Amino acid sequence: MTRAEIDEMLATLHAVLEKETQMLKLYYAPNTCALASHIALEEAGATYETVRLSFGTEDQKKPEYLAINSKARVPSLVTDKGVLTETPAILAFVAQSYPGANLAPIADPFAFARAQAFNSYLCSTVHVAHAHRMRGTRWADEPAAIKEMQRKAPAAVTECFALIERGMIEGPWVMGEAFTICDAYLFTLAQWLEGDGADLSRLPKILEHRRRVSERPAVKKAIAEEVG
Amino acid sequence: MTRAEIDEMLATLHAVLEKETQMLKLYYAPNTCALASHIALEEAGATYETVRLSFGTEDQKKPEYLAINSKARVPSLVTDKGVLTETPAILAFVAQSYPGANLAPIADPFAFARAQAFNSYLCSTVHVAHAHRMRGTRWADEPAAIKEMQRKAPAAVTECFALIERGMIEGPWVMGEAFTICDAYLFTLAQWLEGDGADLSRLPKILEHRRRVSERPAVKKAIAEEVG
Repeated sequence: MTRAEIDEMLATLHAVLEKETQMLKLYYAPNTCALASHIALEEAGATYETVRLSFGTEDQKKPEYLAINSKARVPSLVTDKGVLTETPAILAFVAQSYPGANLAPIADPFAFARAQAFNSYLCSTVHVAHAHRMRGTRWADEPAAIKEMQRKAPAAVTECFALIERGMIEGPWVMGEAFTICDAYLFTLAQWLEGDGADLSRLPKILEHRRRVSERPAVKKAIAEEVG
Repeated sequence: MTRAEIDEMLATLHAVLEKETQMLKLYYAPNTCALASHIALEEAGATYETVRLSFGTEDQKKPEYLAINSKARVPSLVTDKGVLTETPAILAFVAQSYPGANLAPIADPFAFARAQAFNSYLCSTVHVAHAHRMRGTRWADEPAAIKEMQRKAPAAVTECFALIERGMIEGPWVMGEAFTICDAYLFTLAQWLEGDGADLSRLPKILEHRRRVSERPAVKKAIAEEVG
C-alpha cells in the first residue's frame, strides 16, 4: 500500500467520521486565546454557535460555567460527546473533525506532531510569558513581585516570539504551503504584542504573518463577531 | 460504514505507517519532564536509544544541542524525518506511531482531544506552576520576586494537582480503563510533589496513581536507565 493510497483512505474515513460531528458551542471571552479556536471553527466551515463570557464580570468563575470547565478558563468547546478544553486540544480536534479544510497534516503522524509541538510551545511558553503581565497573582502574592513580573514581561514575550521569528515559520505559513491551526494560534497570541510592550522591531516576520492572517475572510468574520 | 469497521481500517492503516518509523533517539535530562516521553517509548515497545544531557553542566545550552532544539529544553526526539520537541507532541506521536500499544484513543478525535487536553493542562499550567520554584528567572530578575515565586509554588502546585484529583482521573487510569500517555505524563510531573512542598494530604488519588504507575515494568525500566 502506498502512502498516497493510505492518505486517501484516511481522508475517506475521516469524512465519514466528520458526519458524526454535530452541533458545537464555543465559550469564549474577547481578547483571549479562545480566538484561535473560533478562527479554526470558521476556517473549517463548521456548524457552531458561540457564547461570550465577560472576564470583567468574572463569568468564568460562576457556577454555571465551572460546571462546563472547572478550570475557569476559556475556551471550552461543547460537543455532542462532551466538553473539550485547552486550545491545542480543541485545535487538533477541529482539524481532525473537518479534514476537508486541511487545517493540519493529520494523515502524517510526524508532520502532525510538528504542528502540535508548535502549538504546545505557544501554550506552555509564549502564552505563559504574556500571562505574567496580567495574571501574576497565579504565581505570587506580594505586589512588588507581581510588579517585577510585569516589568520583565515585555522582554520575555519578545524572546519567545523572536525564537519563532528565527526558525519556526516555514513560510509562507507556519507549517509551509498550507494555512493550519498553527497560524490561527500564532495570530491570536500576536494580537497581544503591543499590549505586552514587545520589541516589534525584532519581529518583522511575525508582524507580516499577522497581517496576512488578518486578511482571511474566516478570520475577519470571527473577529467581527467577538468585537461586535 | 460502521464505527467498528472504521476503527479496524484505521488500525490497519496505522500499522502500515508504523513500519515507516525507524530509529528514534531521545534526548533527556534526569528529573525532567522528558521521563514522560521515555516511558511512552518503552510502553510502546519502540526501538530507540537515549542521550543523557546534564543540566548541571548546561549541556542543553551547548551549540551541538541547540542545533537539535533551539529552545534549549528537553525532551527532543530525533526521528528519520526530523526532530520533535514538546512533551505533548512527542507523546501523541508515539501513540500514533505505535497504535498496537494502545497508548491513546487515536481512532476517535473526541477521545483523543480529551487526552490531549489533559496533557495540555499539564504542560501549560501544572509544569509552569512547578517551574516557578526553580526557574523564576524566566519571568523576573529581582531576587525578592524570585523568592516570592518560590514561596508560593507549593500552594500553586497543590491547587493544580487538586483540580486533577477532583475531576480529571476517570479511573483506574486518567482516561479510564486503558493506561495512556496521560498516565505517563501525570506520573512524571507527580515525581516533583515532595520537592515542590505540595500538600500531599490533599492528593490521595494522585499518590495512589503514582504508586500504580511506578510498578509498571516499562516505567521501572525507563527510570532505571535515567538514574543508572
